[in-house]
Amino acid sequence: MKVAVVGGGSTYTPELVDGFARLPFAVDEVVLIDPAVSRLGVVGEFGRRIVARYGSAVRLTWTDDLDAGLTDADVVLLQLRVGGQETRISDETFPLECGCVGQETTGAGGLAKALRTVPVVLDIARAARRRAAPDAWVIAFTNPVGIVTRALLDDGHRALGLCNVAIGVQRSLAGLLDVTPDAVTLDHVGLNHLTWARAATVNGVDRLPELIAKHGDDLAEPLGLPAELLRLSGTLPSYYLRYFYAHDSVVAEERTSKPRGARVAEIERELLDLYRDPALDEKPELLTQRGGAYYSEAAIGLLASLHGSPGRHAVNVRNDGTLPNLPSDAVVEVMCDVSAGGAVPVPTTPLAPDHAGLVSHVSAYEELAVDAALRGGADRVFRALLAHPLVGQADQARGLTDRLLAANSEFLAWAR
Amino acid sequence: MKVAVVGGGSTYTPELVDGFARLPFAVDEVVLIDPAVSRLGVVGEFGRRIVARYGSAVRLTWTDDLDAGLTDADVVLLQLRVGGQETRISDETFPLECGCVGQETTGAGGLAKALRTVPVVLDIARAARRRAAPDAWVIAFTNPVGIVTRALLDDGHRALGLCNVAIGVQRSLAGLLDVTPDAVTLDHVGLNHLTWARAATVNGVDRLPELIAKHGDDLAEPLGLPAELLRLSGTLPSYYLRYFYAHDSVVAEERTSKPRGARVAEIERELLDLYRDPALDEKPELLTQRGGAYYSEAAIGLLASLHGSPGRHAVNVRNDGTLPNLPSDAVVEVMCDVSAGGAVPVPTTPLAPDHAGLVSHVSAYEELAVDAALRGGADRVFRALLAHPLVGQADQARGLTDRLLAANSEFLAWAR
Amino acid sequence: MKVAVVGGGSTYTPELVDGFARLPFAVDEVVLIDPAVSRLGVVGEFGRRIVARYGSAVRLTWTDDLDAGLTDADVVLLQLRVGGQETRISDETFPLECGCVGQETTGAGGLAKALRTVPVVLDIARAARRRAAPDAWVIAFTNPVGIVTRALLDDGHRALGLCNVAIGVQRSLAGLLDVTPDAVTLDHVGLNHLTWARAATVNGVDRLPELIAKHGDDLAEPLGLPAELLRLSGTLPSYYLRYFYAHDSVVAEERTSKPRGARVAEIERELLDLYRDPALDEKPELLTQRGGAYYSEAAIGLLASLHGSPGRHAVNVRNDGTLPNLPSDAVVEVMCDVSAGGAVPVPTTPLAPDHAGLVSHVSAYEELAVDAALRGGADRVFRALLAHPLVGQADQARGLTDRLLAANSEFLAWAR
Amino acid sequence: MKVAVVGGGSTYTPELVDGFARLPFAVDEVVLIDPAVSRLGVVGEFGRRIVARYGSAVRLTWTDDLDAGLTDADVVLLQLRVGGQETRISDETFPLECGCVGQETTGAGGLAKALRTVPVVLDIARAARRRAAPDAWVIAFTNPVGIVTRALLDDGHRALGLCNVAIGVQRSLAGLLDVTPDAVTLDHVGLNHLTWARAATVNGVDRLPELIAKHGDDLAEPLGLPAELLRLSGTLPSYYLRYFYAHDSVVAEERTSKPRGARVAEIERELLDLYRDPALDEKPELLTQRGGAYYSEAAIGLLASLHGSPGRHAVNVRNDGTLPNLPSDAVVEVMCDVSAGGAVPVPTTPLAPDHAGLVSHVSAYEELAVDAALRGGADRVFRALLAHPLVGQADQARGLTDRLLAANSEFLAWAR
Repeated sequence: MKVAVVGGGSTYTPELVDGFARLPFAVDEVVLIDPAVSRLGVVGEFGRRIVARYGSAVRLTWTDDLDAGLTDADVVLLQLRVGGQETRISDETFPLECGCVGQETTGAGGLAKALRTVPVVLDIARAARRRAAPDAWVIAFTNPVGIVTRALLDDGHRALGLCNVAIGVQRSLAGLLDVTPDAVTLDHVGLNHLTWARAATVNGVDRLPELIAKHGDDLAEPLGLPAELLRLSGTLPSYYLRYFYAHDSVVAEERTSKPRGARVAEIERELLDLYRDPALDEKPELLTQRGGAYYSEAAIGLLASLHGSPGRHAVNVRNDGTLPNLPSDAVVEVMCDVSAGGAVPVPTTPLAPDHAGLVSHVSAYEELAVDAALRGGADRVFRALLAHPLVGQADQARGLTDRLLAANSEFLAWAR
Repeated sequence: MKVAVVGGGSTYTPELVDGFARLPFAVDEVVLIDPAVSRLGVVGEFGRRIVARYGSAVRLTWTDDLDAGLTDADVVLLQLRVGGQETRISDETFPLECGCVGQETTGAGGLAKALRTVPVVLDIARAARRRAAPDAWVIAFTNPVGIVTRALLDDGHRALGLCNVAIGVQRSLAGLLDVTPDAVTLDHVGLNHLTWARAATVNGVDRLPELIAKHGDDLAEPLGLPAELLRLSGTLPSYYLRYFYAHDSVVAEERTSKPRGARVAEIERELLDLYRDPALDEKPELLTQRGGAYYSEAAIGLLASLHGSPGRHAVNVRNDGTLPNLPSDAVVEVMCDVSAGGAVPVPTTPLAPDHAGLVSHVSAYEELAVDAALRGGADRVFRALLAHPLVGQADQARGLTDRLLAANSEFLAWAR
Repeated sequence: MKVAVVGGGSTYTPELVDGFARLPFAVDEVVLIDPAVSRLGVVGEFGRRIVARYGSAVRLTWTDDLDAGLTDADVVLLQLRVGGQETRISDETFPLECGCVGQETTGAGGLAKALRTVPVVLDIARAARRRAAPDAWVIAFTNPVGIVTRALLDDGHRALGLCNVAIGVQRSLAGLLDVTPDAVTLDHVGLNHLTWARAATVNGVDRLPELIAKHGDDLAEPLGLPAELLRLSGTLPSYYLRYFYAHDSVVAEERTSKPRGARVAEIERELLDLYRDPALDEKPELLTQRGGAYYSEAAIGLLASLHGSPGRHAVNVRNDGTLPNLPSDAVVEVMCDVSAGGAVPVPTTPLAPDHAGLVSHVSAYEELAVDAALRGGADRVFRALLAHPLVGQADQARGLTDRLLAANSEFLAWAR
Repeated sequence: MKVAVVGGGSTYTPELVDGFARLPFAVDEVVLIDPAVSRLGVVGEFGRRIVARYGSAVRLTWTDDLDAGLTDADVVLLQLRVGGQETRISDETFPLECGCVGQETTGAGGLAKALRTVPVVLDIARAARRRAAPDAWVIAFTNPVGIVTRALLDDGHRALGLCNVAIGVQRSLAGLLDVTPDAVTLDHVGLNHLTWARAATVNGVDRLPELIAKHGDDLAEPLGLPAELLRLSGTLPSYYLRYFYAHDSVVAEERTSKPRGARVAEIERELLDLYRDPALDEKPELLTQRGGAYYSEAAIGLLASLHGSPGRHAVNVRNDGTLPNLPSDAVVEVMCDVSAGGAVPVPTTPLAPDHAGLVSHVSAYEELAVDAALRGGADRVFRALLAHPLVGQADQARGLTDRLLAANSEFLAWAR
């Protein structure tokens, strides 16, 4: 199997390469594709040292030629970031000017990222259609994953959206239960970055009620949410829910701190310095602060299931009736049985009204976001923002639209 | 036909009586029911003078005995207000303490009203089931109409929810088009107090696009919303949408002004003084400032259709697939063909995502609100508030819950 | 010496009585004065048991007759609360409706308390002028102490304002330094509830820089303020500064919690139940949660100095040039050398601009607050609010004025 | 007399040149100094056409050599803008991220401008000390004028601060009174951009009470403030007071609109295009939208008084006891009698507490702002922000400090 990694020059690529080299899995070749040649070289050379260290047979190559890299790929893994950390800082700060949460995957910042990203991703997917293997999968790990996956599916690609939230929750609950991660089966449901764990089954028994009763405070604390929220709903929200359930606190914090993107940019500079050391042949400790924990495990687990060993994964797929409160053509993030034939959602109970309303609201926004990303225009941006529960006000949507366009005119031809 | 008006001692009852007396319509008897005997007497006597003035044959009586009043009624019209204007002032102010819109029909204030009202309304409806005519209709004009109607339907009553928003929009557009109100057919859709006019058809032609193009600013100005909102969506939001699309401005205004309930209480005192004048036999000018414009026309039009002359009205009914983004058991406010058999929704196009997300969100809240009203408990109140798009935050939902219960303990046995 | 305690029915009177009975001090008689007769009886009887327990010769009496109680008193201690905890809850909540801090001594809540309190206090002081000993002192411990003291001095009384903040800081720093409280001499300066400790001298050495360097985080944490504030200014703000330096956080917290007044009302009920127990003859543990820590020590220390043993105390007195950024007739809270002749401010360095600006701002507000309390009228209330740095906006001042008057019309004849 | 205009390449220089050419006044030479050579040429050539059109004898030259331009100058007029409109946009937007007013002369934006400007201005003033005529005046029209003037005076220069607010008020009131502007004598008092007109005397009679009574609404409306503010205080605040008395409304508006700096940048581009037209020899209409109305009249009036014809002007000078609530070394903006000897404040009544508190607060901030501008360091920036009544909170001051430094590191050597 050949895996093409678009955005392969990322500083977390070594995480992924480590996985490919370490895990027993039928990958023959991994090609890293990135227009940032010099960074790509640093990451690639370091990747080769990791592969060598494990004595793995995986062949690691790299190129800035998209078409060449995609040729005959069986899997195209998208992890690119259009505009780099500079745009992330912008996504995290311009919404604050309007009193809104500044975040790179949801709200106005997430829309900005979607607008920059969707056209680029579609170009890549279309190139893959021409060059890659006939049944190649396009795996979207580029945020906002839900919107990107929806755009890919709408454009007719064989695509899945991947997220590392569910695997992180699984591992964290397994730790509390003192079992191996694989022993825990989640009922993880919602939209990308808007999910709840509704059950955590071990040997056929749902242990989540017990976990919430015993460890409610410990589970709630890192989420920045009150434990009563877990107790009253009987579910464990993902940490992205904080942007909804405590948006005023988030805004207050963001006002007094530097944007996360500025910190990540620093970490990336330090990581690249470390990677340049020809003696380094294993992941440095600092990489754990980079974000994207368990991405490697999630990606490799998914690829393994798509290529021979069926398994259950939380992925982004067409709704097609899985969540009855959403349109069929929405994209949802749910547990799926994944095999060579693709991902089939595990039938699940409908969302409680506590969650269904918010999910419907955000899903409707996502529909408008895809439309704005494909067709452009300030009016479509305004409509998407107005439809987002973290915006929702006409004056704010206007102010955010102006700022989004001004900050992203370099990337949006129609906004100039 | 006998009409029982529960809450008949209201100061706007003369509006209703005026309609019964004026309009050609088969009402034999109207009985006003109210526990506030002295006010009921003032309103009743004045009502008789109005009836006399028109030379109408309608028999107007009043009583504080609910069972007696309901006996053999063909229609039970609910217009009561549990707790009077004092509770309205509370509903309009306690949410402000938490930075939220203070409003008597939506948000935390609307939930407070629902909690107080639903049990009382159900008691009345059950009494009507025992006493009233076998096929009697229960018409809910008591806010929050959507939630009250849903609770009535869930409890198995033959109920419809009535609102005066659509008839007001129809008249206002008719004025701009210089046609009679009846010439305008609205496509009015959504939930109670969360509706949009999507078309205004005259002689088979939808004139709304033309109206928005020509009169966008004039239509938007009284809504307190930017005209671009109308132009971009091609729809005319009801003025209750301001509580959503401009909630920060509403909060800012409410902070600097006295609550609407305080003004209404003053108007009510003045109206009662006027009504006491034995020489007065027509509606005083001041009544127009009381709120509830066109309620009389809306109610009488609806009753006429239920008793013999079919017509199209905006009413609150079970969704049952009318709006595909909502569950079947939701209650929606849509155009219905009304006849003796009841109200049948006119098939309509699905909501655009611009509106569908918000409507789904509020509808999910309404489901939880009914549950909280029926079963009580601070936890259910918290869950309903958290599910409301105007609240949505855990800390705020907690603060609002505490305040709601403290302010309404007199009315909520379970909150003491 | 005879001490008359106005508001003597308060639940923290036992704290005071405990001090009179325990400390070596020439008090012959303490008379508790309060219109709330039954509560006064409970507190008085319990006080007598405390006195008896210590074998003290202090004679403790009580009366609801103000003139009788004041007769021949050498000291009149004011600790009354006009309107009780109900008004406190109002002071703590109505400002929240306008997005402002709800607090009983500062901001709009503090102004409400001032308006209710000043006229009552002046009536008492004038009665004391007629009945009490010729040179009797009026000691104001009723909040807002700065404004109350200013009104007393303007009306020509021999008055001092007392606060327990400085003595609390002294004790807390002494604990960290492991010395006795008396060994620590504070430079405590500002306005009542707007003070900073600028030095904490032990044996001639200012230990505050060392304390801030070593214990900055521990000192800052209970203040809810960042330690850098202490380090950058080299001063220790009183905990009331949090209402200024972190007002948005305070508002956010107040929105999610019950008002402090509601908790105090509960404590008071419990305390009175305890006091009724004829076996109880010492202060119950619960009293420490009542607020007013060290009030007893502060009051008795001050009285001792006024009657024979000179000492240095933080008290509220005329500025008269002590702080050059304030008018002479302002009232300031500074360290004073207190003796039978009265309180003489210890000369001190001017306030740094970091503090001088805020202090000048609040002091100007206090001048307007006294004027509003004496002369009444919504316009004067509006002007005082507009001049307060926690309000400062015209629309907010309008909204707060309306609410303040509506909530306090029972107490403000001119507001009806 | 030779006048050196530093920042002479500004697009409003033609306004000034027009004044010099039109008004009967002993200016022999005007030299425009600016490092932006090409823009300077455009403005200079256009200025010469204006001069020629009037047949004026004023000699207009320009240079990018500061020392050469300053040589033998009798007056040095400072109107430079460090960093141009780009920095203005930054000043107007970064505070919004923290929920604060974004403004280029007050609050965090004003501090940013002060930090960039003061060192540059002091360098120029020191160069003038070496090159210009011995008694040359330095006239500061560069914002924030109060802080810049204070820094100049502290550094020992013969400086005055000039503002066009008072002359604008004078003209506007004269229009309402239907008299010539010169007939109106203002009592204009406060700090730069924090002033009130307390009297408007015509023929010895103060007409302001009458104007407020008759035209209160018209006077208040352009200020964006309620008329009751004028009526209650009997004064007319400058429009900059809106940033204080209505800061939440300002923030709400700024969130929905583009920054003023972006509009001014557009106007400047258009103006330069117009200026390039060799046929243009009079001020284009568009120049009136540029800001700085009446600057020319104010500047020339002041210069005339400094060089021979004494007159009364609103200028920024040392307080020296003029306003007793402020330290002697504060800089105030008050009416002064100006002659060759300099500007002597007209004795005036103290500020009412309604204004004194706010003025003291901002003046203390200005002292810290000068300190931060001269000595640098994030700590001094934090302290100045914390001392500003539009900031005042520790967390906000921290967030603003970080953003200010990040946005201005190009200009602040110590912030890199």
